[in-house]
Amino acid sequence: MNDAVSIAATVREGKVSAVEVTKAALARIAARDNQLNCFTAVTAEIALTDAARIDREIAQGNHPGTLAGVPFAVKNLFDIAGLTTLAGSKINAENPAASQDATAVAKLKQAGAVLVGALNMDEYAYGFVTENSHYGATHNPHDLQRVAGGSSGGSAAAVAAGLVPLTLGSDTNGSIRVPAALCGVFGLKPTYGRLSRAGVALFSSSFDHIGPFARSVQDIATVFDVLQGEDDRDPICTKHPPELCLPQLKQDISDIRIALAKPAVGIAADYFTKGAEPEALAAVQKVADAIEVTEYVTIPEAHRARAAAFVITASEGANLHLDQLRCRPQDFDSATRDRFLAGALIPSNWYLQAQRFRKWYRDRVREVFQNVDVILAPTTPISAPLIGQQTMILDGEEILVRPHLGLFTQPLSFIGLPVLSVPIQRLNALPLGVQLIAAPYNEALILRVAATLEAKGVVSAPVIFNC
Amino acid sequence: MNDAVSIAATVREGKVSAVEVTKAALARIAARDNQLNCFTAVTAEIALTDAARIDREIAQGNHPGTLAGVPFAVKNLFDIAGLTTLAGSKINAENPAASQDATAVAKLKQAGAVLVGALNMDEYAYGFVTENSHYGATHNPHDLQRVAGGSSGGSAAAVAAGLVPLTLGSDTNGSIRVPAALCGVFGLKPTYGRLSRAGVALFSSSFDHIGPFARSVQDIATVFDVLQGEDDRDPICTKHPPELCLPQLKQDISDIRIALAKPAVGIAADYFTKGAEPEALAAVQKVADAIEVTEYVTIPEAHRARAAAFVITASEGANLHLDQLRCRPQDFDSATRDRFLAGALIPSNWYLQAQRFRKWYRDRVREVFQNVDVILAPTTPISAPLIGQQTMILDGEEILVRPHLGLFTQPLSFIGLPVLSVPIQRLNALPLGVQLIAAPYNEALILRVAATLEAKGVVSAPVIFNC
Repeated sequence: MNDAVSIAATVREGKVSAVEVTKAALARIAARDNQLNCFTAVTAEIALTDAARIDREIAQGNHPGTLAGVPFAVKNLFDIAGLTTLAGSKINAENPAASQDATAVAKLKQAGAVLVGALNMDEYAYGFVTENSHYGATHNPHDLQRVAGGSSGGSAAAVAAGLVPLTLGSDTNGSIRVPAALCGVFGLKPTYGRLSRAGVALFSSSFDHIGPFARSVQDIATVFDVLQGEDDRDPICTKHPPELCLPQLKQDISDIRIALAKPAVGIAADYFTKGAEPEALAAVQKVADAIEVTEYVTIPEAHRARAAAFVITASEGANLHLDQLRCRPQDFDSATRDRFLAGALIPSNWYLQAQRFRKWYRDRVREVFQNVDVILAPTTPISAPLIGQQTMILDGEEILVRPHLGLFTQPLSFIGLPVLSVPIQRLNALPLGVQLIAAPYNEALILRVAATLEAKGVVSAPVIFNC
Repeated sequence: MNDAVSIAATVREGKVSAVEVTKAALARIAARDNQLNCFTAVTAEIALTDAARIDREIAQGNHPGTLAGVPFAVKNLFDIAGLTTLAGSKINAENPAASQDATAVAKLKQAGAVLVGALNMDEYAYGFVTENSHYGATHNPHDLQRVAGGSSGGSAAAVAAGLVPLTLGSDTNGSIRVPAALCGVFGLKPTYGRLSRAGVALFSSSFDHIGPFARSVQDIATVFDVLQGEDDRDPICTKHPPELCLPQLKQDISDIRIALAKPAVGIAADYFTKGAEPEALAAVQKVADAIEVTEYVTIPEAHRARAAAFVITASEGANLHLDQLRCRPQDFDSATRDRFLAGALIPSNWYLQAQRFRKWYRDRVREVFQNVDVILAPTTPISAPLIGQQTMILDGEEILVRPHLGLFTQPLSFIGLPVLSVPIQRLNALPLGVQLIAAPYNEALILRVAATLEAKGVVSAPVIFNC
């Protein structure tokens, strides 16, 4: 399958109609999703209506948008007008249908993209595996016995399997990056606050981000550009500590630092090299070698950042669902219920201390970015575990899979840094991801490094066999 | 004693020197403070040096500032260069001296005012009585057996007793307004975020405000004007939810709403009429009658606002002092220690719920201000209780004095509304205060209503007998 930008070009040129592209996507979903379980809803009828409208626009000589006729789907915590927003929950299935699309969905539609459905996730986005007890596990397209990662598992697997070229997910502690890595696709978690969360079910407001999954760097950059810009509906600035609430101005991709001849890149040392399987470190090394990086940099106190992220996530998550936890705990996914209940018992003191540490850590990491533009780190410590696998061995210790796949992602989202997980495909082995990390607002820089890696053939989306 | 503006005029005109004014203030402090215990430090030498400088400025024909030669003092949680900032604590007495004045202190000095010392308070500002186990109780000038109120008790009593015409205090849940009422002086708690807190020891960052005590409305307005304006040193915008973090632009006192012919004033009903002694309600009625107010307005869910304020204050306060609470609890004032320890055990869930409720309540109270410009409410439910008095009877129930004097102040600071407590002097009875409450930024409106009341002789500072 082609990437989104190529599809849109073909549609605009009239070589293929948006309706044909949409029908083909619906056919792929019909053929393969019974095995993969990416979709919780397929909006075939609306999609075909929307696609027909795009085709009429083209016939009338109007510009149908940057993403004309590109099929896309979104994690089922994005509002889709006319559908109930599940957020992976059985309880939420009782809610009325959303009256309005989430801002991100509306923006993609305005750019000509065609929404074909909603995607599976961990309940309330709390997990790294997308093994949802209500809606089933999403299967990894590279090995159906294995998890797709989570919580945006449906979003990653749908792109990896070529069902659609483009999806949206959300990332609180790694929920875009982890499944992107395990499924071998590109997944961008932008700077905190930069993309509107209006119409997106929250998990932990201090950390929730939205972002795209795609098969090419150009697609990621294009979608990012479509999605950015101020949004009056965005609740972020009424819910967050201001120092992490960045102005949501639309910024030209030609960021000032992009003018640098060559970004200074470093490899994350210490914390980010411990507890990873050799293959995860080898993936980082492969990227480093390709762009001749030898320097190491230390992100200080990353282990504390992860601990603090856990405390804030559990506190805020539990608070959001408290009434339901009290009244109908049996209707939660058991895997999230226990974590929420534990979260509800965290002292406010811990929460406040974690928020205070966050400011300290943010300032220290800012100092690191005085000396380096982009930092490399593994996305996950291991490749995709088996569905149902409860534990894994890391650094000689047996630990739970579900919360620990975010080992290397949590300390970065904790302070809202923009991170792109780039996919490394391996012969006879599962894919892995490498995180390209920059200072806030420097998405353009990491996209540029990613484009270099893509041009060298080091990172790429998986080949799709249309069998 | 004259008010600050009159003193400054006399000094500027050369009718009296700043040194003479300062010496007189120091003499009053020397004569009376052994009874009152307002001051924890008197900076006589520096004060006389500063006063002499003002006199030289005048001699040289320079403008010595709006507050030229006006003696003032500040609650001992404001940094004074060269002095250790006690914040009412024995533990803090071990800290090194402050290297720099708090911004508010520096601004008053720049305006020509002369700092003469630091004032007593409840430990870490946690209390409404200024019965400090380390530094003693501050006595109410109207009756030395009675408390001055707190936590800015020294600040209120020093003005009421005429030791100085001007002081600064801080207000988290009522710590300016309560002692202003019990001592019978004017006390302003401005809009949250409007006056810089740089160099002020925090108690509960979500609610801490600073503000002036004075003997006239014009003095309050003048000091407010001197203190306002942006301050790069102010930590507020890195520590607070942004919706309560107002831009600190210097605003002309000629606020747009001041152009109204007559502000619409209402009396706070329901919550603000329950649990008050008849004399407190009579004070409100006296103010209402003087400006012909008969309308009542309801501030919804004020009791919940107070509960939520308690939760946030206790959580944030405990977090700030956690290390010391662990290591040396015996060195805390027993009255604050127990409250801090309890605060350290509050679940994060309660804290987050309280912060969420705060947004809801802020929006509801905004709606109330669609129909009214200024709201009247009692400042305290009773006049000054006895020193050592543990309980009081309110609404037929025996409750603790220390936390409950803020019954009517807490629901207002909770969302950062500007409030001026105006003093009602009574024949053969203790003074009381009435709160004039406005929407954020509308300090000018409440000052205008206060000026009307002052001109009618309804509100005034106590007469001082120089005996």
